[in-house]
Amino acid sequence: MDFSRQNATPDTVKLLLELAEAADLRGKVDALFSGKHINSTEDRAVLHPALRAPREAVIEDAGKNVVPEVWAVLDKIKAFTERVRSGEWKGVTGQPLTNVVSIGIGGSALGPLFVHTALSTEPEAMAQAAGRGLAFLANVDPVDAVRALHGLDAERTLVVIVSTNLKAVAEFGIDPENAFGFWDWVGGRFSVSSAVGMVPLSLHYSFPVMERFLQGMRAMDDHFRSAPLQDNLPALLGLLNVWNSTFLGHSTTAILPYQQALQHFAPHIQQLSMESNGKGVAIDGTRLPYETGEIDFGEPGTNGQHSFYQLIHQVSSHEELMCNFFAQPDALAMGKDAATLRAEGVPEHLVPHKTFTGNRPSLSILLPELNAFTLGQLLSLYEHRIATSGFVWGINSFDQWGVELGKVLANKVRAKVQEARSANRAVSAADGFCPSTVRLLNQFLEQGQTQAPAPGAGPSFPPGLKQ
Amino acid sequence: MDFSRQNATPDTVKLLLELAEAADLRGKVDALFSGKHINSTEDRAVLHPALRAPREAVIEDAGKNVVPEVWAVLDKIKAFTERVRSGEWKGVTGQPLTNVVSIGIGGSALGPLFVHTALSTEPEAMAQAAGRGLAFLANVDPVDAVRALHGLDAERTLVVIVSTNLKAVAEFGIDPENAFGFWDWVGGRFSVSSAVGMVPLSLHYSFPVMERFLQGMRAMDDHFRSAPLQDNLPALLGLLNVWNSTFLGHSTTAILPYQQALQHFAPHIQQLSMESNGKGVAIDGTRLPYETGEIDFGEPGTNGQHSFYQLIHQVSSHEELMCNFFAQPDALAMGKDAATLRAEGVPEHLVPHKTFTGNRPSLSILLPELNAFTLGQLLSLYEHRIATSGFVWGINSFDQWGVELGKVLANKVRAKVQEARSANRAVSAADGFCPSTVRLLNQFLEQGQTQAPAPGAGPSFPPGLKQ
Repeated sequence: MDFSRQNATPDTVKLLLELAEAADLRGKVDALFSGKHINSTEDRAVLHPALRAPREAVIEDAGKNVVPEVWAVLDKIKAFTERVRSGEWKGVTGQPLTNVVSIGIGGSALGPLFVHTALSTEPEAMAQAAGRGLAFLANVDPVDAVRALHGLDAERTLVVIVSTNLKAVAEFGIDPENAFGFWDWVGGRFSVSSAVGMVPLSLHYSFPVMERFLQGMRAMDDHFRSAPLQDNLPALLGLLNVWNSTFLGHSTTAILPYQQALQHFAPHIQQLSMESNGKGVAIDGTRLPYETGEIDFGEPGTNGQHSFYQLIHQVSSHEELMCNFFAQPDALAMGKDAATLRAEGVPEHLVPHKTFTGNRPSLSILLPELNAFTLGQLLSLYEHRIATSGFVWGINSFDQWGVELGKVLANKVRAKVQEARSANRAVSAADGFCPSTVRLLNQFLEQGQTQAPAPGAGPSFPPGLKQ
Repeated sequence: MDFSRQNATPDTVKLLLELAEAADLRGKVDALFSGKHINSTEDRAVLHPALRAPREAVIEDAGKNVVPEVWAVLDKIKAFTERVRSGEWKGVTGQPLTNVVSIGIGGSALGPLFVHTALSTEPEAMAQAAGRGLAFLANVDPVDAVRALHGLDAERTLVVIVSTNLKAVAEFGIDPENAFGFWDWVGGRFSVSSAVGMVPLSLHYSFPVMERFLQGMRAMDDHFRSAPLQDNLPALLGLLNVWNSTFLGHSTTAILPYQQALQHFAPHIQQLSMESNGKGVAIDGTRLPYETGEIDFGEPGTNGQHSFYQLIHQVSSHEELMCNFFAQPDALAMGKDAATLRAEGVPEHLVPHKTFTGNRPSLSILLPELNAFTLGQLLSLYEHRIATSGFVWGINSFDQWGVELGKVLANKVRAKVQEARSANRAVSAADGFCPSTVRLLNQFLEQGQTQAPAPGAGPSFPPGLKQ
């Protein structure tokens, strides 16, 4: 991790470490790892690190060691996924189950999708997944369902449903033996290393591959918990994040992985960061006098406009990618000044257009290679980066009350739309909507339902062609 | 388009229209449509609207009507794609060409991919694409090549290459008759409606479907050119964009389509907007005293955390989506105050955490349905929104000098890496790199090449399963 191109001097880092001390960062990290109810608004522990703790670890929630429960579930996942993968456990018609569809909700789907995409071209993971398929169905759009389910052979498809409603599971007729436990001390956005991610991903890539992913996360957890703050990667990332957003006013960060396999990294971190740290009040309920949070966004930095033709003639594509990765931080830092442009003979009227001030902060992370272990490290690094920023800002990064508001209003819209439709009437201010919403809703009711794909119809990809 | 929830009063809109007049917005729009060289730093016209002009239109660049050339290319695309689609034009081994891989560079690939995904579940487009496949290969990452080419039957696959190098095309042995013209007055990011998008998309969805897409774009072009500014959708969007970013300091805009098929809309608009309006100098080269540009980001708003369970029991999934679409603007505008929370019996210590100030500006666009025509309208709406903002800011939205800087530095990195590797030496400050880059580069050189997928190896999706 190279942060030499931040707008920060060694003095800045020293001051940030003092800020960390003043905010009791170390104490808060210890409280996290020791099962204190640091999610105080929901009176919950925040123990996603326990999901990847070693078997012999002791991590207590309300006086009870949770690690044996975690390992009971992991052992069950291992046994179950090996039976399915070996073909011993078959579908109802006797076919081996080679396809998995995981149905989950937004918060718990982006993370597993990120890991799936990152491993899908890693040699060992690929070998383990040969002949198998995995798809995620994560939202209510019929178009997405068509996409995820299209072309699946039902006789060879196992469906994983993310649900904590064990009563409904039993009522639906599913053997509770085939349910995998989950705890209220794991937030949806931190659930990749729980059964939510481990069941579908182990079915696809094998438990041993996913165990290395957990080991990578654990390695970074240990580092976060024990390394001195001045050498602590997630702590430094989190402090620099506070520095950039709160002190320098940089409200957005672009995350640009130079590997296409990491294409879902930025969206996952975006959700993780915004849901965690998009808070305007301190954990004690007082309104904060400074800006928190940041907007993370990004696309793979590999859509190389410039580099495509070079590639064809000159170097391997991997090296081409890396040349761009090494060049961009200097381009951002140094820019290009008018004197250099004039020396290059750039016509005077173009000089201002080609002048770049530079001094744009960036930070580079170089992995030795992308595999299950380093992927685990990377994800844990960012989980703890976000926790660090939240600890320093003094907010609760682990609740998400803002999500509720839209839900309540959507329920109201739903009830009124159904009421209006069955009474064949328009909605009005009397239904409690503002004039803008009344107008939009009536336009929608008049239009009737817009097109939805016919049942059974799907986009027509020939075998092997993906969108 | 409902902009009643902007932080703007009717007076604001009046003042923005005066600003438009002061910036000669109308004159600049006329200059765009009449082929003036408004991309002055490159001395080029900006005529992407000519790509979808009616056959009888007259649009001149340097005294020459370009519309007949545009239609000559469209007629050629129509004839070519119909021959391929009908099976008359076959591959070298006599197989019909049912798969298309389009190889292009970033700027010209995101747009066609956006249109492809948006049409892939639209009933008529789906019917036209039955049994056919289309994939885009847009970057230099070997992993992406593996993904795009995996499982393709070479005998049934036609490759489209985006290149303006007609000499290389002929030298490579491709009949120039099978090259489709492109002009320097179309920027890569505005090239969806040129041969860049029209060839692969017409091969997949048929020319008539794509002609309706062009007609949709044309309808919005006509509206932008002729509607009075106070009723002009792209002009109002562009002015509100200036209002939000320059006057109110909102530097980011979330684009949240409530339809999964629009999942590539935000990334395409992000690139279009940032490359066009991320400029710090006015078109005359003077440094601007105010902030321009904005960061557009977003994911489909359909990953409905809240709505999944409701859906299963209550309403159609399309309606569920729409209930969320109608609810969010009011949630953002109204928020929720402490008095309401107390009246609902929320415990006092949770009140500040559940209080939301509201007053977050939003803007809603409701399409009657998503089809090729409305998709064309939507894209043209945003192209012209971006042009409007650039006209009012007084910048050149149509050049992209910033892209060059990274390219030059990447060339330098590439040369030095190759030199060091063949001499089996480390790089050093003597190679002209800063200490940070020296350190990163030597780490990379020591590591050797990280893993790339073995040739021929690919992720193993069973037929019909997509990532």
